[in-house]
Amino acid sequence: MKKNVVIIGAGNVATHLSIAIRNADYNIIQVYSRQIDNAVLLASLLGVEATDNLEEIDRSADIYLIAVSDSAIEKVVAQLPGLKGVVAHTSGSMDMDLLEKFDNYGVFYPFQTFTKEKQLRVSEVPLLLEAATEKAEKILLELARDISNKVQLSNARMRKALHISAVFACNFVNHMYALAGELLEKEGLSFTLLEPLIRETTQKALTMSVRDAQTGPARRKDRVVMNRHIETLNDKSFHREIYTLVSESIMKMYSE
Amino acid sequence: MKKNVVIIGAGNVATHLSIAIRNADYNIIQVYSRQIDNAVLLASLLGVEATDNLEEIDRSADIYLIAVSDSAIEKVVAQLPGLKGVVAHTSGSMDMDLLEKFDNYGVFYPFQTFTKEKQLRVSEVPLLLEAATEKAEKILLELARDISNKVQLSNARMRKALHISAVFACNFVNHMYALAGELLEKEGLSFTLLEPLIRETTQKALTMSVRDAQTGPARRKDRVVMNRHIETLNDKSFHREIYTLVSESIMKMYSE
Repeated sequence: MKKNVVIIGAGNVATHLSIAIRNADYNIIQVYSRQIDNAVLLASLLGVEATDNLEEIDRSADIYLIAVSDSAIEKVVAQLPGLKGVVAHTSGSMDMDLLEKFDNYGVFYPFQTFTKEKQLRVSEVPLLLEAATEKAEKILLELARDISNKVQLSNARMRKALHISAVFACNFVNHMYALAGELLEKEGLSFTLLEPLIRETTQKALTMSVRDAQTGPARRKDRVVMNRHIETLNDKSFHREIYTLVSESIMKMYSE
Repeated sequence: MKKNVVIIGAGNVATHLSIAIRNADYNIIQVYSRQIDNAVLLASLLGVEATDNLEEIDRSADIYLIAVSDSAIEKVVAQLPGLKGVVAHTSGSMDMDLLEKFDNYGVFYPFQTFTKEKQLRVSEVPLLLEAATEKAEKILLELARDISNKVQLSNARMRKALHISAVFACNFVNHMYALAGELLEKEGLSFTLLEPLIRETTQKALTMSVRDAQTGPARRKDRVVMNRHIETLNDKSFHREIYTLVSESIMKMYSE
């Protein structure tokens, strides 16, 4: 028997997860979004019904996935009726107990960065699960294993550590690229010059210990070069402050 | 007529460049390193003579590449005899005029991160050149184009901007990975959980604008999540300070 799933949310996470769930032969029966245009867009992609009214949520589903922004979860939960199915949110940083008004609930956290326009293989995305009841654990584990090869049970503390580590390894990494790009742009140089360096840095991080992979003036504690760089950087932007602080952090890591 | 090349230095940059130069059918005739063991190691890889004495440098070569640490260049130059060939250093951050005692000199800056143990395709590495004379420019351009498809003339200012941008896009990126790994380790979680995220973050940076690729709490200006993360982070390490500063920088970039 195929399970019925309702998707609450129509953003990046909701889009990628719902496509993977549909492809794993689940019946997605409804998509909700606060903004009806977004709900309709995802719902039509999946060939299902759209709604922007939480009172209209189908009450017969087996699984409800709440993939909305962290700050919206509480409001969504307050507006949802009592539900028999398993209800899970997809947030790395929110507590499972936000959902305690339901009989069976849990967390279904995909550890990845999602962009709507960009396809990715959900099968390679680590899914971190937490469940309040045996029934919720059984059903969420089954769903998770049907769409990913990397399923792991985790508590709130582990999930939080993962989420913060993702901020460093993804959001902050991307910002370092953006800051690097700004420096090149000022000299009329193309961002594409960075591409081989970005590729190589990533390759190293994936194949050797990041501790051993570290290079650069801070790693060598070369204060002459660091000071010359810091002097060059415009103190009206954050480049200078970030250069100084991150270099201190690297030097500390290698003096321990 | 094959050109004769002397390699001064036996570190990461010297190793990768000299192999690429040898493979492009130049005659490498000598390797110098302050530490004879290092000189012998690289020289035997290339099948040539090793020395740790700058007075013994072969004076008949066409090209001398000084690939030593920034702080050692001046000392090496002072100890070198007058040379007829073209002398170039490989540093992104040092002035060309460090070499002004020679007749023909320049800079031969490979814009990449090098690790001895890890092979890489030098043909994909951008080479940034600067030359003091026409002869130096001609010979360095020829050498550069023989080993790389990405050769560009640049002045000291551009080279410096590139070097600092590499600190952000490579050294600091790697450190973000290391900091992320520390957070996971504390919770007994494996660094490998980060791999799909690292891959995807890189993929995005290489295929879309990094400005558009930015995600996360700072991008959304979600202070509730950011504050919760900051509270969690141990203030004895640099995690908390870096989290705060880089988040501020992201928020500023998207408020402009």
